[in-house]
Amino acid sequence: MARGKFSTCNTCQNLNRLSKTFEDKKFHLKNLIQNKNRLEKFSLKQEGFFYDFSKQRIDDILLHELFDLARETRAKELFSKMASGKIVNVTENRAALHTATRDFTHDTILLDDINIISEIKQVNKEIKKISRKVHNKELKGSTGKPFTDAVIIGIGGSYLGCEFVYTALKHSMDPLINLHFLTNVDIDNFGQIIKSIDPETCLWVVISKSYTTTETLANLNQTLLFLKNHHLEPSKHLMTITAKGSPGDDPSTSGLGAFHMFDFIGGRYSVTSAVGGLPLSLAFGFDIFSRFLKGCHDMDLHALNAPEEKNIPLTAALISIWNSNFLHYPAQAIIPYCSALSKLAPHVQQLSMESLGKGVTSDGKMTDHQTGVIIFGEPGTNAQHSFFQLAHQGSPFPIEFIGVVKPVYNKDQAKSKGIYNHQELWANMIAQAKALAIGKDHENKAKLFTGNRPSSTILINDLSPESMGLLLAFYEARTVYEGFILGVNPFDQFGVELGKVLTSDIRDQIRKKNNDDKTVDFNSLDPATKFYLDTLFKGSL
Amino acid sequence: MARGKFSTCNTCQNLNRLSKTFEDKKFHLKNLIQNKNRLEKFSLKQEGFFYDFSKQRIDDILLHELFDLARETRAKELFSKMASGKIVNVTENRAALHTATRDFTHDTILLDDINIISEIKQVNKEIKKISRKVHNKELKGSTGKPFTDAVIIGIGGSYLGCEFVYTALKHSMDPLINLHFLTNVDIDNFGQIIKSIDPETCLWVVISKSYTTTETLANLNQTLLFLKNHHLEPSKHLMTITAKGSPGDDPSTSGLGAFHMFDFIGGRYSVTSAVGGLPLSLAFGFDIFSRFLKGCHDMDLHALNAPEEKNIPLTAALISIWNSNFLHYPAQAIIPYCSALSKLAPHVQQLSMESLGKGVTSDGKMTDHQTGVIIFGEPGTNAQHSFFQLAHQGSPFPIEFIGVVKPVYNKDQAKSKGIYNHQELWANMIAQAKALAIGKDHENKAKLFTGNRPSSTILINDLSPESMGLLLAFYEARTVYEGFILGVNPFDQFGVELGKVLTSDIRDQIRKKNNDDKTVDFNSLDPATKFYLDTLFKGSL
Repeated sequence: MARGKFSTCNTCQNLNRLSKTFEDKKFHLKNLIQNKNRLEKFSLKQEGFFYDFSKQRIDDILLHELFDLARETRAKELFSKMASGKIVNVTENRAALHTATRDFTHDTILLDDINIISEIKQVNKEIKKISRKVHNKELKGSTGKPFTDAVIIGIGGSYLGCEFVYTALKHSMDPLINLHFLTNVDIDNFGQIIKSIDPETCLWVVISKSYTTTETLANLNQTLLFLKNHHLEPSKHLMTITAKGSPGDDPSTSGLGAFHMFDFIGGRYSVTSAVGGLPLSLAFGFDIFSRFLKGCHDMDLHALNAPEEKNIPLTAALISIWNSNFLHYPAQAIIPYCSALSKLAPHVQQLSMESLGKGVTSDGKMTDHQTGVIIFGEPGTNAQHSFFQLAHQGSPFPIEFIGVVKPVYNKDQAKSKGIYNHQELWANMIAQAKALAIGKDHENKAKLFTGNRPSSTILINDLSPESMGLLLAFYEARTVYEGFILGVNPFDQFGVELGKVLTSDIRDQIRKKNNDDKTVDFNSLDPATKFYLDTLFKGSL
Repeated sequence: MARGKFSTCNTCQNLNRLSKTFEDKKFHLKNLIQNKNRLEKFSLKQEGFFYDFSKQRIDDILLHELFDLARETRAKELFSKMASGKIVNVTENRAALHTATRDFTHDTILLDDINIISEIKQVNKEIKKISRKVHNKELKGSTGKPFTDAVIIGIGGSYLGCEFVYTALKHSMDPLINLHFLTNVDIDNFGQIIKSIDPETCLWVVISKSYTTTETLANLNQTLLFLKNHHLEPSKHLMTITAKGSPGDDPSTSGLGAFHMFDFIGGRYSVTSAVGGLPLSLAFGFDIFSRFLKGCHDMDLHALNAPEEKNIPLTAALISIWNSNFLHYPAQAIIPYCSALSKLAPHVQQLSMESLGKGVTSDGKMTDHQTGVIIFGEPGTNAQHSFFQLAHQGSPFPIEFIGVVKPVYNKDQAKSKGIYNHQELWANMIAQAKALAIGKDHENKAKLFTGNRPSSTILINDLSPESMGLLLAFYEARTVYEGFILGVNPFDQFGVELGKVLTSDIRDQIRKKNNDDKTVDFNSLDPATKFYLDTLFKGSL
């Protein structure tokens, strides 16, 4: 992909103009942030959410042009279309209605003459009912014991968002049901999980929209064998989250019930549907899940209604585009100064890289501009002791710091060097953003910091369900806005198809060999495939 | 950093020549891998370890020149110097002797007239002794109960490598003592850990070479308060891993004992020292740790003795340099098709990014060439359902696949689509490498795969301690070779210093405010720092 040369597609034309404005600028963050009003002008706030982009390498004029870009690409109009159920996933001819799953404002959104709000409410009602039955021990395992654990069987979007929210919330509340995530087709993922559960008190929640996901069905089969070996009744230990009418939406196989997910919600946007709803309600109760939805809805309303210049996810999307397409940063790190948010980066990694990692625009033209970038991250201060050496002195990449104003822990706390641990955490977060921006000269070049390295800082109040909702919906809306402005479809993922086709060919070969070990060999395959399959069957190098 | 233009330093001169050889080449992997002998020529093997670089974008001529580069930079000679205790960490005037911690070959390595092999053996003897005492319940907590858990208090290199090995090994064996990692100064990291331990049966292992690491000492203070509140005797619940003569190397504070780590081993290379030795011996017994060391030593001997063209870590280092400096890939993904290796990428992320993320050469000149790149990764097949969309159709980055020939799980296994889960896992791994390389044409550009995306594949036999040793030492040696060939010092980390200085300033402000809340304010600070500190003290946005 060319860097800094935009030619072919419409988006490229828009980006060209901005590129020209930038060409003459040679500013350094250490100077930019000297301006006393910088923070005020380059930050946004809405109830419970603060976004500081004052340490990004932009000035008023560039920012103004970026907002023009958002207007010209009609980003807000597209967002509004999305939320009202229009076909925004153009390559797959579908709506993208994740915002409807937490819509406390509308009673009706029609899609093909069906009111999907009432469909969603119906699913949530069932989730509320069954999770309550599990909690009050009305529903028990097939040997009569109440449930203590649930294993979520799903991969990618079927678990990453839920895992982020579950991990965060269990810092502030003890789960009523402990969740485990059986995601990988690796048999050792299964082997490790069964060490930590009691089969008699364990629920298994199978999540697959199509009910054809290879990994998930393989893990389901392994689970059915496990239940059988433990003389447990699958119909009393399984639940299913799947599309209406899928092979899993069948009373004979869906166990305790099939909870519907919808065609108009993609996996990576599905946390607020039954995909997150059932596991999180089992873990913490439906009321907690509902509070989480409320936080999402608040951010959705802001993303939908705030004018461009006040719109946090839209502004953040523009900053991302600025960093990738003009400053040519190939990646972005997400660094929450909060261990409870340790699973946020893996979630946003999928959300963003799968949504934006495209080579074509929505109208089918190959792009010249940068689309998605690499997203990665670990909690701070840990990251400081891991890869921040490169952030400070190696090839730079923008960083998104996230601070949580109030920690959960409220018992006795020790001071070190005169301050509390949470204060130390914040002192580090504040200092890192500043150090990256200003740098430091030194005659010994090994101790020189070039500075001018951009970062944003997000603040949320706490680790409450509402705050987690704000954070989740912020990243969803930012991703969608980035897609709309870059002119790529943030809802499809054709890039995963080729691997599936080639896997299927190899699977056929393995199956043949499994069925007839003696006469089948791999000699007709390409040398690499043959070598790997021979090694696999031999069982050692 | 300029891309593709090498001018100032010696390394740049060497890289220039290679760059010229490459300029005329326009090859595509789908053609390169057609060659029947490709795999044989572009792969290396040593006992228990296989490295396939046949899907890298190089040919014989370029490979030949890369090996010349290794010879010209005297990489092997430097490695040999390193292993014999010469000063290779030139900026800090230190040796780098992590290989000595698993040296089963030599009885003597002299450093400043001290035989460090016998010093290391002495520490290991003490580790063996105390872990045995814990296991046979000779050593108990201050209320007389045997130990069941140990919390490792350390950050960065003091835990990442140990966490990788612990996580991997506990798939195949049940820990005698469960480990927990208290790393972050975030008080909620502490809060979460104490939920999962019984204070009376818990050991706390404090790891800090200098015994001045802020986060670690803050967590130690918090731990001491916790022990006091539970009426437990710190001297019977604490162990210390620290440098001889550090403030922690004091019988009055070191609890059950101070186990020495050495000046000549940096944190990110310290897994095989007491830093990994004590925790892993507590978890699985010293014999298991010793088997792990044996695996490391085998790889060390190979890295030291194998000629350039047969040397796996050296070849892998050249491939990394090729990808970053000539093909301009800004990152590398590590994708083990193995959930047990989920903590490998975070470890290598630190190891590589902290070692190589430099802006200067060892002799103090600013570099024009690319040094370290971003390292990130998640296990496959999970990664396929997360960020592989971008890998296939967005901006490309090289991928290192890792396959484990034999899984741990050996009970009843179900088949799906005619094959076992472990076979499905491998089918996917093989298919992904191939799909990235060959691509696929399609008239619908959304379904087009450009291919020519490079990957390597590593195979190990199993999840045994020996195999984990091979893997760990491979990444260490590769990193060191990369540093030597690129001409940067892989052992220092001055890039973390500026943040520490600025944190200290902010800490002073917070301490003053803690001491005198009413009259102290933050009005004299820069507006951003003032805003964040005001918010922190206010307790909400």
